[in-house]
Amino acid sequence: MSAIRDQALACRDAVPVLAALDAAARTALLGDMADAIGRHADAILAANAQDVQAAAAKGITGALLDRLRLDPNRVAAIAAGVREVAALPDPVGQVTRRETRPNGLVVERVRIPLGVVAMIYEARPNVTADAAALCLKAGNAVILRGGSEALHSNTAIAAALHEALAAHGLPTAAVTLLRDLSREAMVELLQLTDIVDLAIPRGGEGLIRFVAEHARVPVIKHYKGVCHLYVDRDADLDLALGLLIDGKTTRPGVCNALETLLVHRDVAAAFLPRAAAALQARGVELRGDERTRALVPQARAATEDDYAAEFLDLILAVRVVDDLDEAIAHIRRYGSDHTEVIATRDAAAAERFVRALRSAVVMVNASSRFSDGGELGLGAEIGISTTRLHAYGPMGAEALTIERFVVRGAGQVRHPGAGADAGA
Amino acid sequence: MSAIRDQALACRDAVPVLAALDAAARTALLGDMADAIGRHADAILAANAQDVQAAAAKGITGALLDRLRLDPNRVAAIAAGVREVAALPDPVGQVTRRETRPNGLVVERVRIPLGVVAMIYEARPNVTADAAALCLKAGNAVILRGGSEALHSNTAIAAALHEALAAHGLPTAAVTLLRDLSREAMVELLQLTDIVDLAIPRGGEGLIRFVAEHARVPVIKHYKGVCHLYVDRDADLDLALGLLIDGKTTRPGVCNALETLLVHRDVAAAFLPRAAAALQARGVELRGDERTRALVPQARAATEDDYAAEFLDLILAVRVVDDLDEAIAHIRRYGSDHTEVIATRDAAAAERFVRALRSAVVMVNASSRFSDGGELGLGAEIGISTTRLHAYGPMGAEALTIERFVVRGAGQVRHPGAGADAGA
Repeated sequence: MSAIRDQALACRDAVPVLAALDAAARTALLGDMADAIGRHADAILAANAQDVQAAAAKGITGALLDRLRLDPNRVAAIAAGVREVAALPDPVGQVTRRETRPNGLVVERVRIPLGVVAMIYEARPNVTADAAALCLKAGNAVILRGGSEALHSNTAIAAALHEALAAHGLPTAAVTLLRDLSREAMVELLQLTDIVDLAIPRGGEGLIRFVAEHARVPVIKHYKGVCHLYVDRDADLDLALGLLIDGKTTRPGVCNALETLLVHRDVAAAFLPRAAAALQARGVELRGDERTRALVPQARAATEDDYAAEFLDLILAVRVVDDLDEAIAHIRRYGSDHTEVIATRDAAAAERFVRALRSAVVMVNASSRFSDGGELGLGAEIGISTTRLHAYGPMGAEALTIERFVVRGAGQVRHPGAGADAGA
Repeated sequence: MSAIRDQALACRDAVPVLAALDAAARTALLGDMADAIGRHADAILAANAQDVQAAAAKGITGALLDRLRLDPNRVAAIAAGVREVAALPDPVGQVTRRETRPNGLVVERVRIPLGVVAMIYEARPNVTADAAALCLKAGNAVILRGGSEALHSNTAIAAALHEALAAHGLPTAAVTLLRDLSREAMVELLQLTDIVDLAIPRGGEGLIRFVAEHARVPVIKHYKGVCHLYVDRDADLDLALGLLIDGKTTRPGVCNALETLLVHRDVAAAFLPRAAAALQARGVELRGDERTRALVPQARAATEDDYAAEFLDLILAVRVVDDLDEAIAHIRRYGSDHTEVIATRDAAAAERFVRALRSAVVMVNASSRFSDGGELGLGAEIGISTTRLHAYGPMGAEALTIERFVVRGAGQVRHPGAGADAGA
């Protein structure tokens, strides 16, 4: 038997042990995990320094190196994040519906954990603690497969989490960090259909495609965000400009940042030059269609690829559209089902926009940057699903559970005649 | 481009057209589909006669031939089933939660259709109409891939459905019946990740394994039901006997029939001989462990395989257990996550049984045969999911939708300072 399968089986064996915990015990466990991260801060920082040094030696720079790097504040933030998850409402055992059937059966829908969640991610060590905390909050065991660049950091964080598990008399395999980071091991993990209930890949397009291609276990993809802002004919243009600047410039490297601006032709002349000036003052490069460039000559010509791109950078694709329908058609064609925004004062137009699009999050007169579990009231998120199954949009602890049926009766049978002669 | 991909693309193109329908239009469409099935009854029966004749000539007999065969009553029942789905509450657009965030954003969770559902099934022609009706009720387009034995019947039923779609000015591709029933075509369908949002295989173990093995699109398995009845020490034995007879004998060929009986040792002597007599009077063969056979000598010795078997027949595996924990351990080891039943008057034992098991449906003092969408209040079901993701247990129209986020604001931005100088 392979090492990966052995580790996964040990993780699965933790599932019934976790299931036996009540909400208070899970909360206490997560609080102690946060404390343990605080206590292990020096070890975590030392391990991280090793990772950062090795990454720098390999020529890794910029945003990737920054994501990998921890400092005392970031470690404290990781612990605080775990503490926040501990404080969230407990989803396990929640009765979402209760109905008494005409025959007297009481039918409840009750949330239970999924079981074993496999988290596949890249070089951000904070995901190790975040994902473990959210999975445990929902009563799941978790297998963590992080990026090789962060292995020392992840191992040090996992050691802190294990200390808390052990202190609660729980199997440390409930949080299993894989150390074999080969592609072969990942493929093996993704095909353990009898063990893994869900795989969540989180990272770049290449990673997600690889997981989707090789998985036999269910996958919820956290795919790219090609987020659109459509400025309608009836938009409040000041409001629209606020959404545009917030969406494009406050954190261009995240998936809920705006990538494309669509403007109704009737307001293009009033809006685009002003928007262009404000964006260019913030270092944003514009790529537009003919009508955009007629109003904003400094914009480069946009290609088809620009409209499909998740730039994750200070670049914005722009198009002038004839009407709402053309905006909807553009988003259907180029969008990634993540987050779309309409700026309008016309309630009917807003409703048509909402109904015609099936993206995970649709906003009316609000910034795309609110497309985030914390901002939308989930408390914390394990990512933003772009898979239209199980969970769509920001995924919190609740999305790591499933509703099942619990039925209570008093001896009801479906065919009361069938057992008549066998009665007492 | 392949024929399968072309057909699937045409089906996907129907998705926004269906999305534009309101609840009343969907209900009217389904009512007209039911009428069309009634009007086409003769053609459907003639096509079915062809299928039945060909199947008989191929040597198909018994239950399989019976599932394939239609008669005027069965066609009327198919139409009635579609009419029932039409009358169900509409899940699309349902607002499941609404919250106002501290910043004034109004965050709603709203049900939308999944998109394109691929239904893979075997020789039961009624599934063609049932699945199409449930998918359309939830606003989805559907690709139907039935068994080759039923192709003429399915084609005739689809023709009736298409007549109603056309009468409503809707693309007939909204219900796409595949005529290429090769394995290659099925594999191609199951790998159309850019088109198919969900595949639902419904049928025998071989079919479901094949789909799970080859699919790249998400799959919800409707797998076997190895359903257990545990008769606790504190059971009302008359009640337990009623559940046993109903569960095992009223329709042994369905997935919610009982396959294994577990009896607490303290009540085995009082329960088993009586249960055995009642079951044997109904033609049920018993296969038991040593302790069972000491009380019921006519029982054959049960093998490991018997405890894992979905007999779908008048056969019952029986085991005497020392206590509730041993019953739970047995079900965890041999169960299929479908439906389990406990008979007990001990509320604490019932709760422990419910909490310790994570099957889709857990019953206390009620027959396993109630594990059915209609019986549990869903109105109709597309099947019973044994996949612990998205939907678990009986799946109705609601399970063919997904909740997304709709957020309404008044210009809220995440970083109010960022656009300050660009304001009006």
